[in-house]
Amino acid sequence: MSERAINFFPGPCTLPFECTEKLYAETLDYQNTGMSLWEISHRTPYFEDIHNAAIDLMHEVFEIPKDTHRVLMLGGGGTLQFAMAPMNVIKPGQFAEFVETGFWSIKAIEDAARVGDARVIASSKDDQYHHIPKGFAVNPDARYLWITTNNTIVGTEYHALPETGDVPIFADMSSDILTRRVDWSRIGMAFAGMTKNLGPAGMAVVIVRKDILEASRTDIPAYLQYKIHDEHNSLYNTPPMFCIAYMKLFLEWTRDQGGLDAMDKNADTRANMVYEVIDTYADYYQCPAAREDRSRTSVCFQLPTAELDKKFAADAKAAGMWGLAGHFMFGKCRASLYNGMPVENVACLVDFMHDFVKKNPA
Amino acid sequence: MSERAINFFPGPCTLPFECTEKLYAETLDYQNTGMSLWEISHRTPYFEDIHNAAIDLMHEVFEIPKDTHRVLMLGGGGTLQFAMAPMNVIKPGQFAEFVETGFWSIKAIEDAARVGDARVIASSKDDQYHHIPKGFAVNPDARYLWITTNNTIVGTEYHALPETGDVPIFADMSSDILTRRVDWSRIGMAFAGMTKNLGPAGMAVVIVRKDILEASRTDIPAYLQYKIHDEHNSLYNTPPMFCIAYMKLFLEWTRDQGGLDAMDKNADTRANMVYEVIDTYADYYQCPAAREDRSRTSVCFQLPTAELDKKFAADAKAAGMWGLAGHFMFGKCRASLYNGMPVENVACLVDFMHDFVKKNPA
Repeated sequence: MSERAINFFPGPCTLPFECTEKLYAETLDYQNTGMSLWEISHRTPYFEDIHNAAIDLMHEVFEIPKDTHRVLMLGGGGTLQFAMAPMNVIKPGQFAEFVETGFWSIKAIEDAARVGDARVIASSKDDQYHHIPKGFAVNPDARYLWITTNNTIVGTEYHALPETGDVPIFADMSSDILTRRVDWSRIGMAFAGMTKNLGPAGMAVVIVRKDILEASRTDIPAYLQYKIHDEHNSLYNTPPMFCIAYMKLFLEWTRDQGGLDAMDKNADTRANMVYEVIDTYADYYQCPAAREDRSRTSVCFQLPTAELDKKFAADAKAAGMWGLAGHFMFGKCRASLYNGMPVENVACLVDFMHDFVKKNPA
Repeated sequence: MSERAINFFPGPCTLPFECTEKLYAETLDYQNTGMSLWEISHRTPYFEDIHNAAIDLMHEVFEIPKDTHRVLMLGGGGTLQFAMAPMNVIKPGQFAEFVETGFWSIKAIEDAARVGDARVIASSKDDQYHHIPKGFAVNPDARYLWITTNNTIVGTEYHALPETGDVPIFADMSSDILTRRVDWSRIGMAFAGMTKNLGPAGMAVVIVRKDILEASRTDIPAYLQYKIHDEHNSLYNTPPMFCIAYMKLFLEWTRDQGGLDAMDKNADTRANMVYEVIDTYADYYQCPAAREDRSRTSVCFQLPTAELDKKFAADAKAAGMWGLAGHFMFGKCRASLYNGMPVENVACLVDFMHDFVKKNPA
């Protein structure tokens, strides 16, 4: 077994090693049945117990009230939710509003516009999405306001939910779920793809307010209906069992680390460590994100030249630190700091950043 | 490690143990990177090589011509394909035709009808779906004819593709994919959920003819477009990596066992062994499926009383044979015999069936 890598990949990303080890140890011969977990019917208590525990843990660890919200586990990843949310909720004659904060919000807006009336009411496009728009007015008739709580490519994040009156917020939390406490009374729907703070790729967790579920459409294909998945407790079809079993372990780990309070504190600690170097060498490590909107999980920065950006990621890799290049379509540099990232790994990055400035003057 | 179970579950089902062992051994510390495969970006050669190998192996092992058909790997399972196929292919003013052969075909028909003009042109409903309809005429203007090649609940299977002229066949092969050679010139689209002959749950493999892909809709949400997945080689979003990595190993295993010829022969051997007992005690093990349409992968039968059905599954379980009860909604008995099922396990079932008749006279 190699030493564990220092892994800043943006997702798939660092997962707690003990979860992976435990999953493998437990599932190869599940409960001494002579079968791996992947060979056992999902309609047996063997799997149902894991499935139900994963849902219960989402409620417990993320403090999602059971009386108002339901947790669904669906295949297709976060991307499918760009389609399912508007398909289920925007009926003919209705509309939803969107805040445009970059790449992922644009995908969500495009999909919603293919399905219904999707209105962008605030955007930071003029600023290349380097801040989170604020102070906009939400139409009280909107079915929901869509936000992307963390924007992985530009490195911005909502640190408070926007004011929306009675309009429920639909929140794409794919890259910062479980990093802070959420006021669920404001949330109509929230979701996240697996790969950051929940486990391996291949599923999305979707949290929906019960009244929105009740009113959701039943005239669309079965797999796309929230209501069908809810009525079957996310067992309408054979579910992504590996993702569910891993998520259970990751949520137990999250709880055992101290839950949301610990995740929140660690997110602060890690991000502050990197931003401190950035601010120390502000002309060298340029961070275009507005200071008050800086992301805690996606620290995006650029060096004085594109060549130095490339050298930074390459030298870091040579020093054992993976994944510091920016998004494959946009370049620059990025340190992704999700819940599974140990603080001591961030300390290595900080040392490297100090060193790199000295060795590579602009 | 326990002895390997004798596992007749209908899916999730028996998988080759060596594939699971190999996957675990290879992926915990992938290529000595200090990362599990689930922590490595899907946009690196580490994962891309596996991804591309899985697609190439589908072409190779299932003998799918690369010049006419494309292989996609999509989240959401087979069930999502009930929606995606009609959404992509039936445009306004167009229609598709369907053969109704039971539970899974009904789900496909219901979803297609929510999306477009779906016409049932043949059904065995009057016969409780105990045979495969034949001799029907396909409208040459139909976009496709939909069939469910194997019907897991009633135990029927197409042993030849129906005559359709120039109309392409869309085939749900979820429960008999890779059990026989297919004439790809007849197939417009074929798909299967993972859990029978491909690997663990959480994905579907979709095979689409290129001209149908080219003509598919681009005004539906992104994740639902075949074309977007194809243009991104099934890497539009973070894919279900575990399923893909497992499928690669399962296809290598399939190839190394002798490929389609061996799978076809083994399917015959296994099914014949069980049907022989059934026919020997035809008044006891009643098999309502028409003889010429008997499924090779889903051998469905019922005993003289519902009590004996239950006792059969329970006594088999006590004798170490899992999963012989029928579908959780329909009952009776069923032996699921997929590619991963060793012939010697079927021999145990055959012995048990002989013995059960003697011990439990009607």
